[in-house]
Amino acid sequence: MNLLGVLPFAHSLLTSAVQPGDTVVDATIGNGHDTLVLAKLVGETGVVIGCDIQASALTSTEARLQKAGLDKQVSLFQIGHEKLATLPLFVNSTIAAAIFNLGYLPGGDKGVTTTGKTTIAAIEQLFNRLKQGGLIVLVVYHGHPQGKKEKNELLAYVESLPQEKAHAATYQFINQKNDPPFVVAIEKRAKFHL
Amino acid sequence: MNLLGVLPFAHSLLTSAVQPGDTVVDATIGNGHDTLVLAKLVGETGVVIGCDIQASALTSTEARLQKAGLDKQVSLFQIGHEKLATLPLFVNSTIAAAIFNLGYLPGGDKGVTTTGKTTIAAIEQLFNRLKQGGLIVLVVYHGHPQGKKEKNELLAYVESLPQEKAHAATYQFINQKNDPPFVVAIEKRAKFHL
Repeated sequence: MNLLGVLPFAHSLLTSAVQPGDTVVDATIGNGHDTLVLAKLVGETGVVIGCDIQASALTSTEARLQKAGLDKQVSLFQIGHEKLATLPLFVNSTIAAAIFNLGYLPGGDKGVTTTGKTTIAAIEQLFNRLKQGGLIVLVVYHGHPQGKKEKNELLAYVESLPQEKAHAATYQFINQKNDPPFVVAIEKRAKFHL
Repeated sequence: MNLLGVLPFAHSLLTSAVQPGDTVVDATIGNGHDTLVLAKLVGETGVVIGCDIQASALTSTEARLQKAGLDKQVSLFQIGHEKLATLPLFVNSTIAAAIFNLGYLPGGDKGVTTTGKTTIAAIEQLFNRLKQGGLIVLVVYHGHPQGKKEKNELLAYVESLPQEKAHAATYQFINQKNDPPFVVAIEKRAKFHL
């Protein structure tokens, strides 16, 4: 039993925030594990917008979704998440929740990582489309050289969010070696644009 | 809606860890809010051991439990939680979960607060009676002078717990002013004594 696991916590947040029929975003589809979770949560009447910069991520995610019979509600795009606002589907939607896995694609090129600058750009675009009470969940893998820098930039940004506009919280292990991943969660408190 | 609230998070951890019939501990009954939550979770076949150093805490908690018809499964003791191991009921039980609210009694004497030393003593006594997979949840109110010291002592202790024996995690808001309370959660991973 692992009551305190980081991934179960991230998924329980998504489960709390997402209803059938909602539109949600997987900002880093990777191998599609979270895309599948989101596709189940929104159901056939919902929409999952998924993006990833690497073609292999789209291939493996598409295969995973088809195998589970959950591909119909998912639209995948080979773009970096900092370009979400270029997607008509995105800019015409109200978003209930979004998830990021920050770091590199497991099993892929470890030189291709998310960065603080592009992650923060994506958070801002998401925030402006998020409904009141909507949630952005980030699972931060920072055990690689670029990871420390991204972690620090992300935390500095999130700590600066005005508390009347957003709740921002972290969930992390504090007695583990080897840079365990941790969760950053941001809830939109009021209708506003950053 | 407040998906990220600290108290709902603490209660969801208790709900995950506690089954009907379990024995649990409220280490700081205060006005009895958590005692009531625990009494519901363990049900009529379970046991809640509650303690507080202040007589007024026992009086208000007893009244709250009686009003809800949930007093039968609760045993209250007017002792500091660092003396849990003096209670025969405690030392003869296996504990599924425990909760602490650190700080002073709301509405009571603000000069009477929990301290790092006694809190850590209680955690050690609890850990030795905790089942494998059992959970200790601490809600840390640190917006008073003694609170900073207790917070620092507690975090230093929890960060030092060996990761093969315990998972220790924090959940906290990172963009709020005025020292918002945060959660420390400790899960026992293996049968062992500290």
